[in-house]
Amino acid sequence: MADRLTLGLDFGTESVRALLVDLRGREHASAVAKYQHGQIIETLPGSPKKLPPLYALQHPQDWIDSAARATRRALRTAGAKATDVIGLGVDFTSCTMLPALRDGTPLCLVERFAREPLAWPKLWKHHGAQAQTERINRVARERGENFLARYGGAIGLEWFFPKMLETLEHAPRVFKAAEVWLEAGDWFVWQLVGGDATTLPRSTCQAGYKGMWSADGGYPSEDFLRALHPDFTRVVKDKMPGRLLAPGVSAGGLSVAMAKRLGLREGTPVSAAIIDAHAGVPGAGAAEPGTFVMVLGTSSCHMLNSVEERFVPGVAGIVRDGILPGFVGYETGQAAVGDAFDWLRRLAGQRDLRLLSQQAAALAPGADGVLCLDWLNGCRTPLMDGSLTGAFTGLTLHHTPAHLYRALLEASAFGVRWIVDLLREHGVPVNRFVATGGLPHHNPLVVEVYADVLGAPITVHPCKNGPALGAAILGALAAGAFPSPNAAIRAMATARSASVVKPQRSHRSAYDELYIRYRELASHFSSP
Amino acid sequence: MADRLTLGLDFGTESVRALLVDLRGREHASAVAKYQHGQIIETLPGSPKKLPPLYALQHPQDWIDSAARATRRALRTAGAKATDVIGLGVDFTSCTMLPALRDGTPLCLVERFAREPLAWPKLWKHHGAQAQTERINRVARERGENFLARYGGAIGLEWFFPKMLETLEHAPRVFKAAEVWLEAGDWFVWQLVGGDATTLPRSTCQAGYKGMWSADGGYPSEDFLRALHPDFTRVVKDKMPGRLLAPGVSAGGLSVAMAKRLGLREGTPVSAAIIDAHAGVPGAGAAEPGTFVMVLGTSSCHMLNSVEERFVPGVAGIVRDGILPGFVGYETGQAAVGDAFDWLRRLAGQRDLRLLSQQAAALAPGADGVLCLDWLNGCRTPLMDGSLTGAFTGLTLHHTPAHLYRALLEASAFGVRWIVDLLREHGVPVNRFVATGGLPHHNPLVVEVYADVLGAPITVHPCKNGPALGAAILGALAAGAFPSPNAAIRAMATARSASVVKPQRSHRSAYDELYIRYRELASHFSSP
Repeated sequence: MADRLTLGLDFGTESVRALLVDLRGREHASAVAKYQHGQIIETLPGSPKKLPPLYALQHPQDWIDSAARATRRALRTAGAKATDVIGLGVDFTSCTMLPALRDGTPLCLVERFAREPLAWPKLWKHHGAQAQTERINRVARERGENFLARYGGAIGLEWFFPKMLETLEHAPRVFKAAEVWLEAGDWFVWQLVGGDATTLPRSTCQAGYKGMWSADGGYPSEDFLRALHPDFTRVVKDKMPGRLLAPGVSAGGLSVAMAKRLGLREGTPVSAAIIDAHAGVPGAGAAEPGTFVMVLGTSSCHMLNSVEERFVPGVAGIVRDGILPGFVGYETGQAAVGDAFDWLRRLAGQRDLRLLSQQAAALAPGADGVLCLDWLNGCRTPLMDGSLTGAFTGLTLHHTPAHLYRALLEASAFGVRWIVDLLREHGVPVNRFVATGGLPHHNPLVVEVYADVLGAPITVHPCKNGPALGAAILGALAAGAFPSPNAAIRAMATARSASVVKPQRSHRSAYDELYIRYRELASHFSSP
Repeated sequence: MADRLTLGLDFGTESVRALLVDLRGREHASAVAKYQHGQIIETLPGSPKKLPPLYALQHPQDWIDSAARATRRALRTAGAKATDVIGLGVDFTSCTMLPALRDGTPLCLVERFAREPLAWPKLWKHHGAQAQTERINRVARERGENFLARYGGAIGLEWFFPKMLETLEHAPRVFKAAEVWLEAGDWFVWQLVGGDATTLPRSTCQAGYKGMWSADGGYPSEDFLRALHPDFTRVVKDKMPGRLLAPGVSAGGLSVAMAKRLGLREGTPVSAAIIDAHAGVPGAGAAEPGTFVMVLGTSSCHMLNSVEERFVPGVAGIVRDGILPGFVGYETGQAAVGDAFDWLRRLAGQRDLRLLSQQAAALAPGADGVLCLDWLNGCRTPLMDGSLTGAFTGLTLHHTPAHLYRALLEASAFGVRWIVDLLREHGVPVNRFVATGGLPHHNPLVVEVYADVLGAPITVHPCKNGPALGAAILGALAAGAFPSPNAAIRAMATARSASVVKPQRSHRSAYDELYIRYRELASHFSSP
């Protein structure tokens, strides 16, 4: 008898990964398919007009096309039949979101909106809603809105409501025509299971972490929304239909049409979506509290489950049952990690990071005086300010690209240390570090520098595809294959061969001193 | 009858140029010869041992070999005979200096000192004397030394006495063995004319601008030197023999040996040396006061003749008759200009600056938010602090190498504006701008950005070899071909086809605002 498999679909910024695993967590196949249009940053498809700066959009058809290609390739590689796959889960970048019609059609695919940039899905890193974010935070503070405390006192530039409000103010015609606003992950699950807009499955993870929603308080009130803009008053009621489902809960069975496209069986249970980073927690086998799971990719998300519920200023999301049932989930993050390293690679005119890594590894801590501020895509935790920018200081004619690269790695590590310090200072224990995501495997120097700067060992989870595995675990849960989330994680994601990167003691005092200088630089460039 | 020619030898950081002109300033030939060892930064010739950081040395034999090659090539190109050349002048980077024996042998060419880095000529940009410079300035202030006022209240890291004191403290054996300390330009002229150490020709220009010497006060007193270090007390008396001669005054006739090496006639009059940058003033035909002559090269020197004698804090050299007789010469400078652009080129992995220039020119003022501090080799005027470092701020993932390059050009221009503001604020009129040196011709975008930022037209002197022409003019003066320096300049360096780069008015207010931000950045990174 063939193994029963589950499928995890992990939607990243440039591509989707399809991972097939069995119920003991053994990988049977993995396939990646790039999005045809990638990140849409320069011009809209079929239009020569330049997009404004800070725009980052995507093409919704890419998600379906790429998922179909990756899934069919994975099935072929595994030699699996459609009937072998008992469930599937979806994780997605967030907040990547879009306006749609009530039948699910993305607004950008409606002819008369195809040339409206704001009718297109906004990628998580789209930074057009600066003014709206500031206003939402100011009005919320003035009104003493309760939800602020769950988000470290401020919501982020990349979140759901700022992006909707940006559209209302910059493209009112688009806003008016939008019948449904939703997360890309929810849209994809909706496409998989079909059905009416009133029952479209929205993930509590995405709603809680990016949509100002909580199980107790729901979404922000109409009074608050009216204070932002009169035409925003009924946006939740009129344009955000659906039902809220926790990740791992079945959103329904695969529709005939989508089963055919993906090469799967009609009716296969589909889990409600989860944010890609959050999927990394079950994917890294981290069920126990106090484990700081770093999902390192183009950006980084760090997740921590704790028994303590503390409101930590600057921590973007504190959501009870937000990652795993029974614990308080803390989410923090850095907005540019792999993206920043890749920016430096391009800056230095290099094809890959090999040479830079080799040369940077040979330098001593402190990169011969170069100090970097890693805010190339703003600062997520703890300053929650997407408008902040990066810097290199201490430059002389003697410095090479490798010096800048090492300084950037160190700055990224100082950013993590700042977050960990903050959690501990507020009484949230951090006992153990786990690194997962694609970056640690492509770029081991990152983990070494992180371990040195944190002064603690870092376990690199051997699954190269933590979020995809997490999504597959949710697929198993949706299929009812396990009695509880913890049982599923233990069975499917216990690391059999984790590697541990130990800190170099000799670097400790140098990094302690450099960290103080990093904090001073951060303080200078973030003060008004 | 053939034209009578003069030869200008212009010693730069990487190469020497030989220029042959006639007495109406018409160029007959120009040839460049690179120094075989270039800048010695990594290891000494013939030794694998790494030099300390901040070291920049040169090989004295390179100067003679390259001058011979360049001169012979220029003679060939011009179809000129040895007897056609009636005089020659020498300009040199400064303060590039060396220890020698009393017979002129550079100490580094004495076998037992060949492996002592500090026995080698220190290039102007050698930055090993940080501690010594600070002490000289501190002790001079404590003792109320008069010479400080002529140098903006502080002497520079790259000057003559700090480099001698560095050697005394870091290589006492070298200091002890050094029988003569002298500028490289003076050493070269001494090699040309031969003779005893007691009569070796020292340039008043180099002594006045880099050696704390003045016509009134001479060199610093023995009391002051003793306060720096007991073994330094008699350094002027014991180790700095020679006679002080103004540029344009004949130091003697070419020796038999050197006439043979260069392919010239024995006895040809040789002018006392001048600093390369200062040679650019006659070379650019700028005899009238109020003309700010910018000699743009790897670093920049700006020279201004004025009838006003004002002590301007931060202005490195205020020397009566220092550039031209009858005026007060003001010297200011920026320590990294072409060098900094080239650093960015290397950083971006580009073969030349063509593509970067093209892309940077297409950007609006402000480089989409990137702001640079151009102190990649310290700040010369007005902060006189070689230990200051450069920075790039405002960086985001959207920025390309062209953004950084434009920001660097703008920072360089803001640096000039700061200097001009400072002179005017202290009552020194600046009426006109002239750009010369190699850079304006290779890199016209520099001059455009400078004109925009200064809000004033800049005349680009058509002689691509301003300092070399200046040196040739001094050669004519040494040969007695003109009754006065002004007559020589008028005859030989009046521009017949100067191009004028006009400022773009539309950029004015943007640059006014950016300049304020540059000054704020400078203030942050220079405050202790």
